[in-house]
Amino acid sequence: MKKLINDPGAVVRDALGGLAIAHPSFLHVSQEPAFVTRCDSPVAGKVALVSGGGSGHEPLHVGFVGSGMLDAACPGEVFTSPTPDQILAATHAVHGGAGVLYIVKNYTGDVLNFEMAQEMASAEGIEVESVLVNDDVAVKDSTYTAGRRGVAGTVFVEKIAGARAEAGGSLAVVKAVAEKVVANVRSMGMALTSCSVPAAGQPTFSLGDGEMEVGIGIHGEPGRERVPLRSATEIVDILAEPVIADLGLWPGEEVAALVNGMGGTPLLELYVVAGALGRLLAERNLKAPFILVGNFVTSLEMAGCSISILRLDEELKELLLAPATTLAWPSWVSASREAT
Amino acid sequence: MKKLINDPGAVVRDALGGLAIAHPSFLHVSQEPAFVTRCDSPVAGKVALVSGGGSGHEPLHVGFVGSGMLDAACPGEVFTSPTPDQILAATHAVHGGAGVLYIVKNYTGDVLNFEMAQEMASAEGIEVESVLVNDDVAVKDSTYTAGRRGVAGTVFVEKIAGARAEAGGSLAVVKAVAEKVVANVRSMGMALTSCSVPAAGQPTFSLGDGEMEVGIGIHGEPGRERVPLRSATEIVDILAEPVIADLGLWPGEEVAALVNGMGGTPLLELYVVAGALGRLLAERNLKAPFILVGNFVTSLEMAGCSISILRLDEELKELLLAPATTLAWPSWVSASREAT
Repeated sequence: MKKLINDPGAVVRDALGGLAIAHPSFLHVSQEPAFVTRCDSPVAGKVALVSGGGSGHEPLHVGFVGSGMLDAACPGEVFTSPTPDQILAATHAVHGGAGVLYIVKNYTGDVLNFEMAQEMASAEGIEVESVLVNDDVAVKDSTYTAGRRGVAGTVFVEKIAGARAEAGGSLAVVKAVAEKVVANVRSMGMALTSCSVPAAGQPTFSLGDGEMEVGIGIHGEPGRERVPLRSATEIVDILAEPVIADLGLWPGEEVAALVNGMGGTPLLELYVVAGALGRLLAERNLKAPFILVGNFVTSLEMAGCSISILRLDEELKELLLAPATTLAWPSWVSASREAT
Repeated sequence: MKKLINDPGAVVRDALGGLAIAHPSFLHVSQEPAFVTRCDSPVAGKVALVSGGGSGHEPLHVGFVGSGMLDAACPGEVFTSPTPDQILAATHAVHGGAGVLYIVKNYTGDVLNFEMAQEMASAEGIEVESVLVNDDVAVKDSTYTAGRRGVAGTVFVEKIAGARAEAGGSLAVVKAVAEKVVANVRSMGMALTSCSVPAAGQPTFSLGDGEMEVGIGIHGEPGRERVPLRSATEIVDILAEPVIADLGLWPGEEVAALVNGMGGTPLLELYVVAGALGRLLAERNLKAPFILVGNFVTSLEMAGCSISILRLDEELKELLLAPATTLAWPSWVSASREAT
């Protein structure tokens, strides 16, 4: 394991220190307990959005803190849930009087700890609701999860709920649109290589030279099957077919798509994947006004990708295209609004 | 070599196809010859900026095409210079009557081919100037270069010259500010692993389990030395010291810094590096209002990073903080303008 770190046990603390130094006028970073907020928090009268989860998936979630998306992110240790006290502290920091929505990826630890934080905040009189993201169609249960896992579709939830909150939606309205995204987004991923958790010091799993893992989770947990490596176009078929089938998409529907890199795959390859996905969508007569391409929800340095598809309607499209200013949400999306 | 591709010989063509499909309302993609332009090209009366170089360094250059940065990017094959006809075709597509500036990284092939394109365009009566980026302090001459190589500092040149052009600067003015950036930016990089060019099918070089290459080029060409792996803080010392010394920075000066990922290093680690760099700059009493952190100029899936430092004055700072809308320039930079 070769990594750019100082201490395998202090990677998250050191990275948060770097985040504070790199963006002093844009983000506020708390170390004890660990959470990251917009510098203008709390925004009075706005529903506050809080997410979080294990570190190692960057830019998720800290990269999506900012106007039009999250108010706070709570990073746990690598691939480890944040604690209730982190989440509660973040809640205090961002609560602007209009309630707080937790966006939780469906992993057992995350669910328990966000629930506990919600109970504590509610006991203090802070109105908190939560929404569970479970977009991964690959497997039903997995190492870290009962039910479907929450993966890259989380970005769409954070973007769209964030836009609704920024536009003044009430807690009930913001929660409803977040649930609408969850109901209409599905994902599936694959890996060419494993990743190594710094504190573990060795790869999470191993894959042969000619193999790939289909349906991989974002912690390297097992997927559907281990098969010989295929071409990008074949891989897109393998990933996108179950996604489209599970969504029950009909010809003529409009979708937003995300080709997400797992961390170690060059952007050049992700665009090869995007081309194949665009052709598949066109063959199905599915309209995609654009495709997001890049590292959004990673698994450290894992090579591989995932495909997420979101069924759009006018409301979701408008909110997806609304401006947002964060470390990692790309500005071209709203710039292309007029043309789509 | 495991890659998400269809045909090792068609990776760039396939990726450009994906780019066209992913961003139809934001970019225009030409395949024969290969170049990418803003959708609103040519912008009448604006100096047009054209850059390019071998593919495999994404998001450079295509990710920096858009308002406030480049008008066109000319991608060559992987790690191979674009041809004069590509550059000339891009020049035709973006020339808005106010002249064209070529931003050229200092590699022998790039220099020759941009010079040839400049001669051809000039013969047609198009006013073209060019600026050579040679920010890498690691080595004097290298596999692909006479003189210093152009690396991640190129992003600062494209951003700042682009902002000056967007604000209506003449060709002479835009060229002058680009040269000012070149005179005031230096970089140095390192690698933990090699990368594999798709058409070659095997790693460009090999590094032992406990080794790193200091002063690596963005094509995997040799650097200064191969030494045992160090901590992130020690690596920052090794990279930043020669950069600061070569710039001749004095205590109290203001700088912009870039911690650039080589493609295969997790963002979490890059922020550990950013923290160490921030502390080093503070120790030297160098003021850095922010640090850019992420994959800007990559070497396919190479693990490693580079550090770039730009000496700021009021003009450069203002132009760096001006808005730009491209695939990869982060929107938070101009959002943090008021606070810096």
